Amino acid sequence: MPRLRLAEPLVMLATVVQWLALSMLTGAVVGVGCSVFLHLLFATEGHVYAVPLGVQMSLLVVGGFANGLLLHYGYRLSRSGYSDSPIVAVNEQRGRMPFRTLWVKPVAALITLGCGGSAGKEGPCSHIGASLAAGIGRVLHLNPELRKRLLACGVSAGFASVFGTPIAGAIYGVEMLAIGRIRHDFLFPGIVAGVTAFQVSKYLGVPYPHYHIAFISDFTELLFLKTVLIGILCGAAAWVFVELLQQARRLFGRLRDRYVLWPPLVPLLGGVVLALLVMVVPSDYLGLSLPIMERALHGETMPYLGFLWKALLVAITLGSGFYGGIVTPQFVIGAVLGGAFAHLLGLAPALGAAVGLVAVVASASNAPIAAILMGIELFGADSTLYVAGACVAAYLIIGHRSVYPAQQIAFSKS
Amino acid sequence: MPRLRLAEPLVMLATVVQWLALSMLTGAVVGVGCSVFLHLLFATEGHVYAVPLGVQMSLLVVGGFANGLLLHYGYRLSRSGYSDSPIVAVNEQRGRMPFRTLWVKPVAALITLGCGGSAGKEGPCSHIGASLAAGIGRVLHLNPELRKRLLACGVSAGFASVFGTPIAGAIYGVEMLAIGRIRHDFLFPGIVAGVTAFQVSKYLGVPYPHYHIAFISDFTELLFLKTVLIGILCGAAAWVFVELLQQARRLFGRLRDRYVLWPPLVPLLGGVVLALLVMVVPSDYLGLSLPIMERALHGETMPYLGFLWKALLVAITLGSGFYGGIVTPQFVIGAVLGGAFAHLLGLAPALGAAVGLVAVVASASNAPIAAILMGIELFGADSTLYVAGACVAAYLIIGHRSVYPAQQIAFSKS
Repeated sequence: MPRLRLAEPLVMLATVVQWLALSMLTGAVVGVGCSVFLHLLFATEGHVYAVPLGVQMSLLVVGGFANGLLLHYGYRLSRSGYSDSPIVAVNEQRGRMPFRTLWVKPVAALITLGCGGSAGKEGPCSHIGASLAAGIGRVLHLNPELRKRLLACGVSAGFASVFGTPIAGAIYGVEMLAIGRIRHDFLFPGIVAGVTAFQVSKYLGVPYPHYHIAFISDFTELLFLKTVLIGILCGAAAWVFVELLQQARRLFGRLRDRYVLWPPLVPLLGGVVLALLVMVVPSDYLGLSLPIMERALHGETMPYLGFLWKALLVAITLGSGFYGGIVTPQFVIGAVLGGAFAHLLGLAPALGAAVGLVAVVASASNAPIAAILMGIELFGADSTLYVAGACVAAYLIIGHRSVYPAQQIAFSKS
Repeated sequence: MPRLRLAEPLVMLATVVQWLALSMLTGAVVGVGCSVFLHLLFATEGHVYAVPLGVQMSLLVVGGFANGLLLHYGYRLSRSGYSDSPIVAVNEQRGRMPFRTLWVKPVAALITLGCGGSAGKEGPCSHIGASLAAGIGRVLHLNPELRKRLLACGVSAGFASVFGTPIAGAIYGVEMLAIGRIRHDFLFPGIVAGVTAFQVSKYLGVPYPHYHIAFISDFTELLFLKTVLIGILCGAAAWVFVELLQQARRLFGRLRDRYVLWPPLVPLLGGVVLALLVMVVPSDYLGLSLPIMERALHGETMPYLGFLWKALLVAITLGSGFYGGIVTPQFVIGAVLGGAFAHLLGLAPALGAAVGLVAVVASASNAPIAAILMGIELFGADSTLYVAGACVAAYLIIGHRSVYPAQQIAFSKS
């Protein structure tokens, strides 16, 4: 009888123990870092909805300029030449990042969101996670393969901490690294780090809202087709969002090149455009826009074109060179859109908002599995059938574009 | 300003509509096929626990011989030369399968399980799904790429119908095709087909049990470490299971070669070994063993070595050439093991059984994402944090072995 092969399970046990230690350490450190950022953010963001229009407008211009100065001069002294994108760091830089990212990006995001720039809070957390994990990898003298995995693990921890959905956050961090693939070897580190970061953030008092959506448990094939329709709609909205973002980036890039502008002037110009826009666009769509998202999830009637205002403001904010996250805007766009169109399909607006929220994430971020899990973690297991069809349909509709320009295609979708 | 590129979203919309039609058709057809099989199965299986020992023993021998005859002569006239493994059909045969599989494998499984052979009910359903989908692909004259995807979609539909967890089933069908990768382009077809097949099976009266496990919502880091420990234990058990299976296959293969046995005699021999074993092993571990799995999920005390009995009986059943599924045994092994060891970690036995059930699937089938979703669909969203850590830990421990010998490694785990 052939010998039992005992070596592999022992190697794997060692792998598990090694990653348990590394990713709990990383998760804890990242959890603390993200908690500090999120507390600062919640203290500074949100005041902008209530101030007089004139102050809003001035803040946007000042914020643009401050962002421009910080991002232009912040990296000046960094000679590593590394990109600060976590996706590039994992795929091309063998897990290395400029450590400076740790403070530059979060401070820029605080300025952007505090001054009313329309953006999200995830980017900074993933940057905090990635740069701390890169730092840990350097201090521990890990080899490039381990550094890469540790960096992905830091990104997962950052998302878990900011979303408040540890498993979906962890898988989002793995799934966003490429289009069309989940690297299963990143799963264990990511989930351990994600759960740890979430526990630490909860312990440190970061608030995570709960939503109670009434999903009818008597799910039918017709209902499924309706959720697929919402998914198609959300995929189209995500497509509009990504297009607007790219067009805005190009437009401001051309302005800079054409008139040889001093770089910090470009976001200042973006601030001016935003300031003019808020004269017509409701201020609900400034900053994180969490209040309007929550109203959508509570079933309030949403305007049909609300999603477009949000997409436009975010495109100008991020396209002109403000820095901020790109996932909260997807939540807002999806919730507002789903809430607005649900009743046309005979669905409850709150249900439409919930399904829309995750479908836009599945689509614009190319992260369908994370989005399905996010739906489950936010809205409960009764939502599984509702969100799954919508997420995969939306994921297909957007094709191979993405809010993350660095995302590479691992597998074609069609 | 650059032109908007409208072509891709339209292509994607066409893809969505095309797959909506193809996979709803496939899902409905597969749902009907699996329902017929499952009704026949539930009518014939399970009587074996109650009959006298002598009858049990004779049935096992007769069942082995009948299986041998059927599998040896059933494919005799098939000249296509194609393998009937869905994994091979997708990866190497461009979506082609011998259509004969549609009845040969289910009938063999009915004989195996009806006579007390220890196996599962998923294999036949995935074979029904794959062969029906291959048939649809041939009738519609689809190109090889579409045929492949349609076949995967049929497999997803089969798993969704037999598990009663449509999303987990659909993703299991995609995830089991290779180690370390989920092909995202299979997701939409798989989920649509899975949901459709599940709805059809439910409509046709296939019973799906519900489990109510009390997961404590006050999850802590210590609790997480305990679930990881259960995961490690389950990974080790899965390793034992896969090893026993391989050793049994080799042993019976050598016997056949050494003594130049007429092939149908080999499973008959397996039946004799099983018949001798049931004199010492409790008959709980024969057939599908659903009753003992349910007792474990209801929190009854389980024997420490129960998982080993099940693994041994299944290894001899399948290794000697009976035909049957390979997933229900993973459920049983996991639930019995988790239920037995939970109290050593201070966890409720039912909770340990639930976590163990999915962890062994994550591991032995190399399907961690499907296993996490299965936990959620079977036990509710409160189980998410409990099952996630266990599933990914178990998935690592087993290394690169698998209950599916055809599974190829897409990404190394360590």
